Amino acid sequence: MRILGIDPGTRVTGYGCVDVTPGQLEPRLVEAGVLKLDAKAPMPKRLAQLHADLSALIEELKPAGLAVEKLYAHYKHPRTAILMAHARGVILLAAATAGLELEHLPSTEVKKSITGHGHASKQQVQLAVQTQYGLDEPPTPVDVSDAIAIATCHARRLAVEMM
Amino acid sequence: MRILGIDPGTRVTGYGCVDVTPGQLEPRLVEAGVLKLDAKAPMPKRLAQLHADLSALIEELKPAGLAVEKLYAHYKHPRTAILMAHARGVILLAAATAGLELEHLPSTEVKKSITGHGHASKQQVQLAVQTQYGLDEPPTPVDVSDAIAIATCHARRLAVEMM
Repeated sequence: MRILGIDPGTRVTGYGCVDVTPGQLEPRLVEAGVLKLDAKAPMPKRLAQLHADLSALIEELKPAGLAVEKLYAHYKHPRTAILMAHARGVILLAAATAGLELEHLPSTEVKKSITGHGHASKQQVQLAVQTQYGLDEPPTPVDVSDAIAIATCHARRLAVEMM
Repeated sequence: MRILGIDPGTRVTGYGCVDVTPGQLEPRLVEAGVLKLDAKAPMPKRLAQLHADLSALIEELKPAGLAVEKLYAHYKHPRTAILMAHARGVILLAAATAGLELEHLPSTEVKKSITGHGHASKQQVQLAVQTQYGLDEPPTPVDVSDAIAIATCHARRLAVEMM
């Protein structure tokens, strides 16, 4: 079963795709990267680009489910969160259009699943993702490692359910 | 020239459509209403419904431009604003896909244009919209009057440019 984890942003949206195999607790990393948006383009154009790029990625990778982080109750930077939410809305739309199951995971659960600590830093997540998948280097930017961590957290939940 | 004003929300999205005629300062009200979303449906389904309903409305009314309010620098209720932004992202996407010009108007300018006061209440906007277009009753809910006010504000700017 294939899971696509997404870390939404209006400049860079990270994605990480993993496969869950019945009988195996640990998922396999298929692919990860970023969808970069033209920071100089007006917001509607950026969102249209994000929608097109993500739809193409879903078409190519054919995941069964898409995972994102839950919204927080409180944000340190509401304006950044509001901009992010524009991208998140477009991502949820693309998931619905493609008929994907959507999973919302609390940020603390994602961090705990990959690092052992619910309040790990982005750099700790990066290193944990590198170790987990035996990568030569930590995935960069952190949008990629965050997206892989989201996909991994959901994949592990599914793996347990499949046991 | 036809303008569609939108007041985004994940339960109710208001719309107001007005026509600007060269040589006339005041726009004409074409149609207004709400796109109601199923509050019990999960967010991706609601956003897909909003996208489909708004795309159908754009197809039917064929506006040249779409107007929304600018984001504030500060929000009293960040969580509500973050949910609204999911809908706003989908609306901007629909505008880009349809090739519409997008106008962002400061909330205070919208209120000032229709009521004379930049900090008017939603009820004052409602009554001002009723008076402006000679309606038998104030438009309800306030999502509709807000959307008409947004369209009116942008239409008046355009009317002056066309003089």
